[in-house]
Amino acid sequence: MTTATRSEHDLLGDRDVPADAYWGVHTLRATENFPITGTPISTYPHLIDALAAVKEAAALANEELGLLEPRKAAAIVAACREIRGGKLHDQFVVDVIQGGAGTSTNMNANEVVANRGLELLGHAKGEYPHLHPNEDVNLGQSTNDVYPTAVRIATVYAVRGLLDAMAVLQDAFARKAVEFRDVLKMGRTQLQDAVPMTLGQEFSAFAVMLDEDRSRLAEAVELIYEINLGATAIGTGLNAPAGYAEAARRHLADICGLPLVTAANLVEATQDCGAFVQMSGVLKRIAVKLSKTCNDLRLLSSGPRAGLGEINLPPVQAGSSIMPGKVNPVIPEVVNQVAFEVIGNDVAVTMAAEAGQLQLNAFEPIILHSLSESITHLRAACLTLAERCVVGITANTEVLRATVENSIGLVTALNPHIGYTAATEIAKEALASGRGVAELVLEKGLLPAERLAALLRPEVIAGSGAPAA
Amino acid sequence: MTTATRSEHDLLGDRDVPADAYWGVHTLRATENFPITGTPISTYPHLIDALAAVKEAAALANEELGLLEPRKAAAIVAACREIRGGKLHDQFVVDVIQGGAGTSTNMNANEVVANRGLELLGHAKGEYPHLHPNEDVNLGQSTNDVYPTAVRIATVYAVRGLLDAMAVLQDAFARKAVEFRDVLKMGRTQLQDAVPMTLGQEFSAFAVMLDEDRSRLAEAVELIYEINLGATAIGTGLNAPAGYAEAARRHLADICGLPLVTAANLVEATQDCGAFVQMSGVLKRIAVKLSKTCNDLRLLSSGPRAGLGEINLPPVQAGSSIMPGKVNPVIPEVVNQVAFEVIGNDVAVTMAAEAGQLQLNAFEPIILHSLSESITHLRAACLTLAERCVVGITANTEVLRATVENSIGLVTALNPHIGYTAATEIAKEALASGRGVAELVLEKGLLPAERLAALLRPEVIAGSGAPAA
Amino acid sequence: MTTATRSEHDLLGDRDVPADAYWGVHTLRATENFPITGTPISTYPHLIDALAAVKEAAALANEELGLLEPRKAAAIVAACREIRGGKLHDQFVVDVIQGGAGTSTNMNANEVVANRGLELLGHAKGEYPHLHPNEDVNLGQSTNDVYPTAVRIATVYAVRGLLDAMAVLQDAFARKAVEFRDVLKMGRTQLQDAVPMTLGQEFSAFAVMLDEDRSRLAEAVELIYEINLGATAIGTGLNAPAGYAEAARRHLADICGLPLVTAANLVEATQDCGAFVQMSGVLKRIAVKLSKTCNDLRLLSSGPRAGLGEINLPPVQAGSSIMPGKVNPVIPEVVNQVAFEVIGNDVAVTMAAEAGQLQLNAFEPIILHSLSESITHLRAACLTLAERCVVGITANTEVLRATVENSIGLVTALNPHIGYTAATEIAKEALASGRGVAELVLEKGLLPAERLAALLRPEVIAGSGAPAA
Amino acid sequence: MTTATRSEHDLLGDRDVPADAYWGVHTLRATENFPITGTPISTYPHLIDALAAVKEAAALANEELGLLEPRKAAAIVAACREIRGGKLHDQFVVDVIQGGAGTSTNMNANEVVANRGLELLGHAKGEYPHLHPNEDVNLGQSTNDVYPTAVRIATVYAVRGLLDAMAVLQDAFARKAVEFRDVLKMGRTQLQDAVPMTLGQEFSAFAVMLDEDRSRLAEAVELIYEINLGATAIGTGLNAPAGYAEAARRHLADICGLPLVTAANLVEATQDCGAFVQMSGVLKRIAVKLSKTCNDLRLLSSGPRAGLGEINLPPVQAGSSIMPGKVNPVIPEVVNQVAFEVIGNDVAVTMAAEAGQLQLNAFEPIILHSLSESITHLRAACLTLAERCVVGITANTEVLRATVENSIGLVTALNPHIGYTAATEIAKEALASGRGVAELVLEKGLLPAERLAALLRPEVIAGSGAPAA
Repeated sequence: MTTATRSEHDLLGDRDVPADAYWGVHTLRATENFPITGTPISTYPHLIDALAAVKEAAALANEELGLLEPRKAAAIVAACREIRGGKLHDQFVVDVIQGGAGTSTNMNANEVVANRGLELLGHAKGEYPHLHPNEDVNLGQSTNDVYPTAVRIATVYAVRGLLDAMAVLQDAFARKAVEFRDVLKMGRTQLQDAVPMTLGQEFSAFAVMLDEDRSRLAEAVELIYEINLGATAIGTGLNAPAGYAEAARRHLADICGLPLVTAANLVEATQDCGAFVQMSGVLKRIAVKLSKTCNDLRLLSSGPRAGLGEINLPPVQAGSSIMPGKVNPVIPEVVNQVAFEVIGNDVAVTMAAEAGQLQLNAFEPIILHSLSESITHLRAACLTLAERCVVGITANTEVLRATVENSIGLVTALNPHIGYTAATEIAKEALASGRGVAELVLEKGLLPAERLAALLRPEVIAGSGAPAA
Repeated sequence: MTTATRSEHDLLGDRDVPADAYWGVHTLRATENFPITGTPISTYPHLIDALAAVKEAAALANEELGLLEPRKAAAIVAACREIRGGKLHDQFVVDVIQGGAGTSTNMNANEVVANRGLELLGHAKGEYPHLHPNEDVNLGQSTNDVYPTAVRIATVYAVRGLLDAMAVLQDAFARKAVEFRDVLKMGRTQLQDAVPMTLGQEFSAFAVMLDEDRSRLAEAVELIYEINLGATAIGTGLNAPAGYAEAARRHLADICGLPLVTAANLVEATQDCGAFVQMSGVLKRIAVKLSKTCNDLRLLSSGPRAGLGEINLPPVQAGSSIMPGKVNPVIPEVVNQVAFEVIGNDVAVTMAAEAGQLQLNAFEPIILHSLSESITHLRAACLTLAERCVVGITANTEVLRATVENSIGLVTALNPHIGYTAATEIAKEALASGRGVAELVLEKGLLPAERLAALLRPEVIAGSGAPAA
Repeated sequence: MTTATRSEHDLLGDRDVPADAYWGVHTLRATENFPITGTPISTYPHLIDALAAVKEAAALANEELGLLEPRKAAAIVAACREIRGGKLHDQFVVDVIQGGAGTSTNMNANEVVANRGLELLGHAKGEYPHLHPNEDVNLGQSTNDVYPTAVRIATVYAVRGLLDAMAVLQDAFARKAVEFRDVLKMGRTQLQDAVPMTLGQEFSAFAVMLDEDRSRLAEAVELIYEINLGATAIGTGLNAPAGYAEAARRHLADICGLPLVTAANLVEATQDCGAFVQMSGVLKRIAVKLSKTCNDLRLLSSGPRAGLGEINLPPVQAGSSIMPGKVNPVIPEVVNQVAFEVIGNDVAVTMAAEAGQLQLNAFEPIILHSLSESITHLRAACLTLAERCVVGITANTEVLRATVENSIGLVTALNPHIGYTAATEIAKEALASGRGVAELVLEKGLLPAERLAALLRPEVIAGSGAPAA
Repeated sequence: MTTATRSEHDLLGDRDVPADAYWGVHTLRATENFPITGTPISTYPHLIDALAAVKEAAALANEELGLLEPRKAAAIVAACREIRGGKLHDQFVVDVIQGGAGTSTNMNANEVVANRGLELLGHAKGEYPHLHPNEDVNLGQSTNDVYPTAVRIATVYAVRGLLDAMAVLQDAFARKAVEFRDVLKMGRTQLQDAVPMTLGQEFSAFAVMLDEDRSRLAEAVELIYEINLGATAIGTGLNAPAGYAEAARRHLADICGLPLVTAANLVEATQDCGAFVQMSGVLKRIAVKLSKTCNDLRLLSSGPRAGLGEINLPPVQAGSSIMPGKVNPVIPEVVNQVAFEVIGNDVAVTMAAEAGQLQLNAFEPIILHSLSESITHLRAACLTLAERCVVGITANTEVLRATVENSIGLVTALNPHIGYTAATEIAKEALASGRGVAELVLEKGLLPAERLAALLRPEVIAGSGAPAA
């Protein structure tokens, strides 16, 4: 059996490509040059969609300006819509880690759109005189404006998924905050017993952290709406006719439904990775908070006998191949690990951004790769944490209340009611005897039982730090 | 000779402190416990000022609420104002890296304010029954709300200095952008010759980057205005009377002239380091851009004979102990190194923030230390770069223009004017012969000399990417 | 059409698994719990092989000690050998990022080995009373000794591939060092012209760096040979009979052909990730050097007209979708990006290692994931750099020599021969006039032409810094 | 009052320096150019000593080779010995963060040695014709070989201090391992109760980790012994006469008492920072382990009532300004923060090393700064942890034993003695009833009390994981 091929030509000579491939010679060389991860860019469907959107917008702008024949434009637009509809993604085969500042990704897109367009025009794949990857599909464009623009749109799409997932997790914590609003417990600072609070307050803090992080993420997305389409090679707009940048932006905004704006200074915009560094920094912040939250969940659920044992995480799988009955906090643990990955990715993004030189940053592919990984993994982590852990958390209410009554820190709360001197005496005696503060206060008749109970009511203990979850 | 001492008492027993020290036993123990860096917190004058402002605000709030005698309040306020006026900073002696979540810093402040207040009241240092570090100066407060609040105010003060320095540097670049607006040069992508631009555009991009970073920094400061004063130990406001948080915030905002707001959820605010992580991320972004800019300056000024030689940095010191006449780009180099330090500090801040547990982050001292270092060093780096380098940069104008005329990339610009076929022929011949495109175009009569000159006018070359600097 | 299933049972109840799946209920739950990356552990064939080797060794040790029936042992061994021969890898389906300290990976292995073993014994999959995943395949083991041991063996296998690839790259540089040994050029420090050297010396330095890094990597592997098999849950060896640890180690060493040793302190070994941190640090070092080397290659090949233009990298793909004839250094660029990824991964490994608590580090899965990615991507990067770039590099010999003759730095080399005073005069005149040092020396008769030529012979210029490549 | 000055001259013109300053014009300009941290290089006494050692060795080598008059050499040697004896360190005033690849540090040393030498020869400071900073003190040297050599020697000195401190800490842990060898406790994995062990084993693991890290650190120092003295500007040894490199190395090794070797390839050695990256990686490893250890100490001592409460850290200062009697784990906390700093510094070192270009890394000053900080702070942290915390740790022995007897995990240990079926029943009943395993085993007569006691003897529980500490 023979595999049918067609011959294509580029700067370096002729090469055979499979006859049924929508990609062409530039893509072929790129797959040979970058055998790094084995993962093709089709792993990022948002990027493929965004590339198709950019090609479509450019074709419409070029047609509008009289630079591209309407039937060529129509073929390009039709091909791009198919891609945005989920077709041909398997034709995007270049490696996610690649040299060339995204040129291979752009050429892969140009070739796939051209060949599918050729088919729609009734031609065979490879008959580029009828619709050319570079001269038609890439008309008025450069990798240096197409690629960053597509990366930005893909990032916006991905971040929206993360924002939704964070909202789900926030909601799960907020519901628990309500559920646990009357559960008294000891607060801790520096892992040492401090003063009483409610478990609802503890979970409310987790929800608030997510809410704040969502605000920061939404702000960071704003910066991503700024594109450099029309900049061409270095931002001077060389070879892009008057009106092209604005027309392309307008079409692209329509296609994507995004409030895209063209950067005020295209030379700067073409070399700058600031918005990606900012986005990565915010993702790192989210990772830091999620990791802290999961550390707390693991600590509060430690036990069952030799730990804090304040809450129970729902068991989701057997925990040990050797210790019967052991169940481990595997969901918070996997979230911790995603957080570590995201924090590491931020360093990779930082180095890639710093390595930009003169009029371009050649290292945007690793920036895209790192950001995509961070965003999609964080999204999965938030959903998993919400659905497989938080919603099923229960409190060991009686244990928690007993710990409060037995605590020394309780004396701090009784200070204003029994006086500082008595409080100090009680604290000393509790420490020396191992007995509880509440018990001693009652025994010494410093407060009647009902008054003590009133002071220990959750709404009193929660104090000023507890707005509605 | 003997040194006079006074005896002080704490939880662990009695200790002698020097009679003339304004600090007391808690500070003494802290200096013994944390012999880490040898650098005292007085290195951060903004922090000392901020601590004094918080103590002053708390005293005024306590007086207002009838919790503190007016004469005690007056003594505290007077002592704090002296400190904010620059006095007694040498009494802040605990190490910048310390355990205890800032307790030692807070106690150092309580002791210095109390002892200076005692003097003002006509008492000897150490006569705490008349004015007590804990019961009076720290009244209604906890390290866990005082310290983060002071750190935030100190950060705001420091960031203002950085914003000013960035504006100075931005202005220096912008002036050069104007000066070089007519200097043609080759733009480069991936270090390979691309298409022509102006040197003014290159410097304008440096200015724009700084402008954007200043905006990000100003946004990050907004988050820092949110304080948790009144939260006391864990955010429940235990032992802080009704109205205290608001009164203290109001006084503090007045004293500092800052639009401070109290966090909506004090439990969350007391454990959260999100604003510091965000700030550190923005500082890292600034570092990344500054480093990229300095890399470009070093590259563009490489030579004098075997480098790009496009610009000249002003010589500021002899460059070699062995090679006569060698001058090196030492100013950009020192800025690069500050950038590396800031990027490293961001990792330290990240780890410290992630390590927070339950109701408090015990590692804010290293966060403060890292942020302070990053901010003050970036400030120094910006000013040094502006004053000792950028203002003195000159262009090798003739060399730059010759490179453009001799370039292959020029043909891309002539494409629309001589046609793609002719352009390709010229490019091939230029590559093969080593001759220049401009020369060949004239020789072949493809364009008259004056038309070619018109196409090479800076305002044409700069294209759409060149708004006014 | 219905899919056949079988029912399995665990701590949490009954679940149906596909009848043809070799994995079972524990694996099923893990795939549901960890939908993070979509990448299964089968992506790491070395890990699957290593798991099979451990299971095989344990079975042989258990048989030897009379704890496992010979026919059960034989079935386990046969199944493991099939896996090590490349079969059934598609049955290892749990996500590369997972909670549970590797328990799911271990259980996936136990289930696949048991079910394949059952088939070999003539039973149906799922008939665990005849061969049990936990009681037979996992006999005497715990995830906490199996998983780290397998991760170590997998790492050794992967590192060997990297060492080979580094040797290929080193050899490519060394050959170029010989090829270019007579090519004079200007050396540069701080991007400023320094003194002459040969291009062979420059390439020799690249080769030597790799040689040193290979030595460091080989040292780091030594630490990886230390395993904790026999430690069971926390290192006390609970439930592992006397002699088991040694027997299992012996069999495992035989199977793998590796000089494995059992850690002296198993409690420490079970919680420690030091060897992985060390390995990651060395990978980072390799990344740093490779990135520096690629930065140099990109800089030296910058141009063609407006750059240093000292060397030519072989063109491997067209460089621009808009600028005809542009070729970019895409291979060094992709290597830079792998380096950034590896440096980021080191931070992830660091955080995961630091997060270990008490008797175990629960975060080894992300450590494995990060190390595997770093090692395999570095390997691909080294081979790609060698084969698609270094072997085809050519030198612009005449340009390089002219730069030396035209340089000011040459005067430093002539210092001992024409005297310091004359040298300084020549340097001044060269700087002022823009003329070359060699030209001026000849013009002034300070040296006869043949003497000058002799001083510029490569072997003289190379000096003491040039041992054989 | 007027300040006396003397005039000095350099490449850029004339400048007045204070008459009593041992430093000169080059140092003056450097202090003006690098107003970054305010911290002078004299903060690193090891570096000043190492610089003096290099200058002394070079003078002796130059004298030996007949290049330097004996009386000049004698003056240089005498001045260097004074400096190594602790004098004149206050004259080393350039900033720790500086551009110029260390040139300013080298020139500061040249000037101080020259001026002190001049005094010893009976001349006034500044009379350089009699002893010149460059021509005599720096004879045969370049910053590019002097500075890295001095940095290496300073690093060796500093690391020795760290190795000693680590030994002190290891010893403190080992002593506690012996003290606690009979204290039974529950081991934990993933923060969940696992199986019994001894507290001695837990502390032994801390000691073993330090022992392993000391080995790694000692290995890393070996790489630091390799110097490039004699390389001069770029490693070609230009202007260094035959025999100089070897003579200088020999003298330097004698002076320092270190087994220094000259790098085989000086071109590579002059641009390479591999040994520093390796050292930094090992420091990071130490930080990771120390931080994990301190996390454990804080967790094990959490309480006093609402935590694990297994051990007591000695109180070293009052813990709260608001909660009476609260004592916090401030010593482990400060060590955690040093660890975060060291991990951040590793990223700074990594970026600085990666940024090296062509024949030199211009960023060694920040590498030195980061390494010095990491090493000295780690040293302080180890000593503080040993002396102020570990030596005073006590165990809550009865609480620990009760937890073991009450645990479910105990059943895993009794498995071989009461049979798997009975064990499972006991586990189930214990879980359901909340009662202890030991209690149930005795109640059901499954084991006689003395047999149970025997099985719970520490030496049995400790098992194979417990070699002598």
